Amino acid sequence: MTPTHHRILRSLNASGPLTRADLGAELALSKAAMSGLTRDLIESALVEETTSVQRQGRPAVLLDLRADGACFIGISLLSNPAPIALTDLKGNILARASVAFDPDAERFADNVAQAVPAIVSGVPRERLAGIGVALSGLVDEDKERCIKSTLLGWQDVPLAHFIRKRLDVPAFVENDAKALAISEKHFGEAREFQNFSVISLGDGIGSAHFIHGRLYRGAHGGAGEIAHCTIEMPGRPCRCGKTGCVDAVASLSALAEMAREEGLDATTLTRLEQEATRGSSAAIRILHRAGAALGRAIANVIQINDPQMILIAHQEKSFSGLYATVMQQAIEANVLPRLSGRTPIRTKRVDNDVWTRGAASVVAESFLNGLI
Amino acid sequence: MTPTHHRILRSLNASGPLTRADLGAELALSKAAMSGLTRDLIESALVEETTSVQRQGRPAVLLDLRADGACFIGISLLSNPAPIALTDLKGNILARASVAFDPDAERFADNVAQAVPAIVSGVPRERLAGIGVALSGLVDEDKERCIKSTLLGWQDVPLAHFIRKRLDVPAFVENDAKALAISEKHFGEAREFQNFSVISLGDGIGSAHFIHGRLYRGAHGGAGEIAHCTIEMPGRPCRCGKTGCVDAVASLSALAEMAREEGLDATTLTRLEQEATRGSSAAIRILHRAGAALGRAIANVIQINDPQMILIAHQEKSFSGLYATVMQQAIEANVLPRLSGRTPIRTKRVDNDVWTRGAASVVAESFLNGLI
Repeated sequence: MTPTHHRILRSLNASGPLTRADLGAELALSKAAMSGLTRDLIESALVEETTSVQRQGRPAVLLDLRADGACFIGISLLSNPAPIALTDLKGNILARASVAFDPDAERFADNVAQAVPAIVSGVPRERLAGIGVALSGLVDEDKERCIKSTLLGWQDVPLAHFIRKRLDVPAFVENDAKALAISEKHFGEAREFQNFSVISLGDGIGSAHFIHGRLYRGAHGGAGEIAHCTIEMPGRPCRCGKTGCVDAVASLSALAEMAREEGLDATTLTRLEQEATRGSSAAIRILHRAGAALGRAIANVIQINDPQMILIAHQEKSFSGLYATVMQQAIEANVLPRLSGRTPIRTKRVDNDVWTRGAASVVAESFLNGLI
Repeated sequence: MTPTHHRILRSLNASGPLTRADLGAELALSKAAMSGLTRDLIESALVEETTSVQRQGRPAVLLDLRADGACFIGISLLSNPAPIALTDLKGNILARASVAFDPDAERFADNVAQAVPAIVSGVPRERLAGIGVALSGLVDEDKERCIKSTLLGWQDVPLAHFIRKRLDVPAFVENDAKALAISEKHFGEAREFQNFSVISLGDGIGSAHFIHGRLYRGAHGGAGEIAHCTIEMPGRPCRCGKTGCVDAVASLSALAEMAREEGLDATTLTRLEQEATRGSSAAIRILHRAGAALGRAIANVIQINDPQMILIAHQEKSFSGLYATVMQQAIEANVLPRLSGRTPIRTKRVDNDVWTRGAASVVAESFLNGLI
């Protein structure tokens, strides 16, 4: 497989089924070259010919990725037990399982090694391209180690190395928001965008940017740390050590904490929205404060990066209550009038499948780039 | 000239003199290919052989760009009359002149057309690659028209077209901060960085990002509009229509306005710094407010994009007074402790030469990319 073979795979992944002629035009390859390259890819069972279309009266064959051309394992450390899924080259989930988390990463890697054979049973060994793990925290540029995760209590843990040692397949770790962004770029809502941001609203707030068509990590892996933009002054103390961070008022854990401080029973977003609907002024105050803070942070992202689209990943059945409404208003009120209303804000409910697919897509991306 | 010829020019521009062997290794080109390509470039008078170095006992010839291989005209609309300069392929300024600004862009283009022959006299016509104009305002992605400039009172003005029509050479307009970023990447302090931001402190505050080695414009040309991040709440009304923008307290025109409101005679940054040194509490208050606001906006840039370096372009003799000190403190206090102190903040005094070189470098970049 040459870089040109991988360019064809990436084009098919990005654009869906294409004729040889269209692919050749897109990649500036001759008819003869295209013919040889696609023959290789068909023989490798990565590409297949699909339904033919009529093109100027003549039938033209479409080429497409074969979903079963490769498969990937994704593991999410956002829940315990950790959900694990097998996905194909089109991002479909083929099998699900779970594996007990262990704060001792070597022992957790043992658990993973035990769970993998069952989930890949029936899949030819050479089709398994690798294993990806998504976690809340910072990872290094090589996606080898978790540099720091408050949620997991980890610091400098080479989990990818531990897994690779046991299973002898490529393995990667990735930050959850970054994994989700990669997944949305390759298999989801962000396919057509070169520049977009994902914002994940969970116990903490995460974020990731695609810029110029690639995930952008920043100089110290810190690109996307919008959670710690100072929004309120004076503001609430944040677990990061400073005050006034978005995370300290707009994350789900901050909502719960503020609710407890107000003596409310409702400590989830859904329950707070219900209380607000019933007229609880404390719930209204909390949701207003949270939505305004997240909205202002998103306005900063728009002012600084002007992305084509922002995708908010949330865990609620619907994200349309007071929090979301105030957030939207705060976005519009805090961006330049010229930019106001021009950045599509989409929302996506995330569940275990979304996170495991995200983790698997980190491997899929490396595969499509010919790096594994 | 093929794309590979241009890749060689870009490598030499980025790295300085290199041996054929090093260039070939960097660009993955065979010795035979390198030999032919460099011969072409030497014949075209774009590249020359320079001092030979001893490499393992044997002399090796270094290749370098020829400064006189191409030249570029840069015009800055940040002053009136507009300074105009002729630069070479290494960013040196060869000649300077000025041309009267005219709010009627067709008439201004007439003035430019009149001024150009004198400034390029002695330069073979085919060596002039084009003309770039830097202005405060928004330009379109094709660098053809000024979409909006408050300073110039322009809206949707195709200045590049007007100039091209008169002189029959490639012409571009570019936002001042973006032009400066391009200039710093190709000829200045940012050569070694793939990801950096420029922040220009003038009557207004401008900004530009390089990400993944390329200028990043954003979806609507709005990337870098940090001037209108909301920093104060409640804040001062801004000319953009919202309140609390950085621009409304930290730009030089905001400083002057706040000084007038406080009844101060000192309406420049230098004078305000002098007053602050003498103990004027109003001057101290104004500079503190401005420095804190700009610092918080820069902290947002670090939190969101984690650049390798931030370059602050200012107009003062030195940028080390109360404004700069408070700005630096506000940066450190408002980024994640993990990122604190890790982003180099550099400063650069800008003058007419810097802006005209910036404008010219927009043309130089197109030239090195083989686009003109």
